[in-house]
Amino acid sequence: MNPHSFDAAVTLTPLTTGADAAAPGRFTGVSSPAYWNMIGPYGGITAATAMQAVMQHPGRLGEPIALTVNYASALGPGPFTVQATPVRTNRSTQHWSVSLSQADAAGAEGVVMTATAVTAARRQTWGVSDRPMPAVAPPADAERLTLKAGVEWINRYEMRPLAGRFPDVWDGSGTHSLSRLWVRDDPPRPLDFPSLAALADVFFPRVWLRRATRVPVGTVSMTIHFHADSGQLAESGDGFLLGQAEAQAFRNGFFDQTAQLWSGSGTLLVTTSQTVYYKE
Amino acid sequence: MNPHSFDAAVTLTPLTTGADAAAPGRFTGVSSPAYWNMIGPYGGITAATAMQAVMQHPGRLGEPIALTVNYASALGPGPFTVQATPVRTNRSTQHWSVSLSQADAAGAEGVVMTATAVTAARRQTWGVSDRPMPAVAPPADAERLTLKAGVEWINRYEMRPLAGRFPDVWDGSGTHSLSRLWVRDDPPRPLDFPSLAALADVFFPRVWLRRATRVPVGTVSMTIHFHADSGQLAESGDGFLLGQAEAQAFRNGFFDQTAQLWSGSGTLLVTTSQTVYYKE
Repeated sequence: MNPHSFDAAVTLTPLTTGADAAAPGRFTGVSSPAYWNMIGPYGGITAATAMQAVMQHPGRLGEPIALTVNYASALGPGPFTVQATPVRTNRSTQHWSVSLSQADAAGAEGVVMTATAVTAARRQTWGVSDRPMPAVAPPADAERLTLKAGVEWINRYEMRPLAGRFPDVWDGSGTHSLSRLWVRDDPPRPLDFPSLAALADVFFPRVWLRRATRVPVGTVSMTIHFHADSGQLAESGDGFLLGQAEAQAFRNGFFDQTAQLWSGSGTLLVTTSQTVYYKE
Repeated sequence: MNPHSFDAAVTLTPLTTGADAAAPGRFTGVSSPAYWNMIGPYGGITAATAMQAVMQHPGRLGEPIALTVNYASALGPGPFTVQATPVRTNRSTQHWSVSLSQADAAGAEGVVMTATAVTAARRQTWGVSDRPMPAVAPPADAERLTLKAGVEWINRYEMRPLAGRFPDVWDGSGTHSLSRLWVRDDPPRPLDFPSLAALADVFFPRVWLRRATRVPVGTVSMTIHFHADSGQLAESGDGFLLGQAEAQAFRNGFFDQTAQLWSGSGTLLVTTSQTVYYKE
C-alpha cells in the first residue's frame, strides 16, 4: 500500500552521518508535486514540513502551541534541507527555530522559509471556548468544490463550501471576505499537528473574494495558535473540519487573513492569521 | 532635556568593533526599569526592542509588515545583546531573524527572545478596511485608569478604558473577554514602528477579565501584522489610539488574545494575536 500523499509530502530523513551527526534536527525532504500550487508547493505543506521537523526532533518537549512560518522565497522542485533547533528548553515550554533551504540553479544554498515554534507540556486547567462553531449544514448537504483547471494541491482536499465561495466570475462584484467550508484530507487521514498546520492555509486568498478580481497573491507570513492537544486531534479522527476565514484590512499590497478550524463536533482546534501580498 | 522613557528603553548601541565589526545588526541594550512588569520588562518593550534592531539595521529594505516575538525566558535587569539578521532579501520584501540573549547569574549567555520579521517596500494599491473602528466615546469622556500597587510599565501609558475594565474584585464573576480603551504613551510621543509594536501588547491578560480571577500568566508568542506605513503613523502623531482585545479560547494552560489598534481618526494600524500561558 502506498503511503498517503500527505505522509509522502512531509517525509523527512534525518541527516545523521558525517559532520551532521552532531546536529539532530537536520533533515532532507523533497518538494511534493502532489501539493503543487502555481509556482511551488502549497504554502500549507511547507508549514506542515516545518511542524514535522519539530515533531520528529528527538529532543522535543510537549506538543505544539504556536507556529509562525515566513515564506521567504518560492520553493522549487527537488530536494531541500530543514533544520529544527530547540533554542531554549524550559521546564514546561520549548522554543524552536526552523529554517528550510534549497540550492538554487547555480547550486548556491538559499533560505526559502524561516519559522519559529513553541511546544509545551499542557496541564489540565479551567477552560472555555468563546468562539462557538457557527451553525451550518452538515457536510453531506454541502456540494463538493470542483475547480476546472485548478492547481494540483486542491485535489488533495475534499472541500465543501458553505458560504463565501470561490468566485465564478471575476467582475469586481465582491462585497465581503467571509468564507466557511467543510474540509478534510482526500483520501481521509487521521488529523495530526502537521496536517492541521497544512489545513490552516486551506482558504483561498481573501482578496479574490473581496474584490471578485484575481490579482497575483502570495502568503508572506502565517501564524497558527494550536488550542487542541493530541487527544483532541484523535477525537477529530479523519472527519471533516469546519473552517472559517475573513480579512480585516487590505492596504497597499498586503492584507491579513484570520481563520478558525473546528472539529466536526465543534471543538475549536486552531486560530490562525496570515499576511498576504497582493499586486495592484 | 532627557529623552522620552520609551526612547531610552529601546536604545540599542551597534557592536561595530573587533570581531563583531563584520556583523552589522548586532547591538547591546539595557533592560528598562521604567517598563518593569512583575519579574522582567513589559513584553511590549521587548517586542519594541526586536523591532528597533530591525529598524536600525543599515541593510533594511522597506517598512515592517509582520513581526512575531517569542518570549523564551524572563529578561533580567542589566545589559543584553540583540542580533537582527536579514536572512533573505528579495526585490520588494526582506525576511529577518532576530534573537535577544543575556548572560545568566553564572555568566552563561542564554536566548531570552526569538523573533522573525518581514519588511517590505509597499506600493499604492486598491484597498479597503473591513474592520471599522467601533463607535465609542472620545478620550476626554473616558476616565483615566489608575491602579493601586500597579506595576511600573503601566505608568508609561495613558489608558482610558471604555469597556471590559480591569476587574475591581476577583470573585470569579467574569462573563466575556472584550476590552476597549484609548491609549497613548505618557508623556505623548509620536508613533513609530517600535512604539506601535509595544502598544500591541498593552492589553491586560484576557483570562483575568474572563474569569475575574487573577491567575499567573505569561505571553509565550505574539504576532503583529502592520497595516499602516510610516505616513499613516505620522498622521496618527502622538494622539490616542483605540485598542480592542478579545480571546477566542482558553484551554489547558494557554489562551489566545487577538487585538486591533486604530488611530484616533479611525485608520486600522495593526492587528495582532498572541498566545498566553496561564496557570490553573
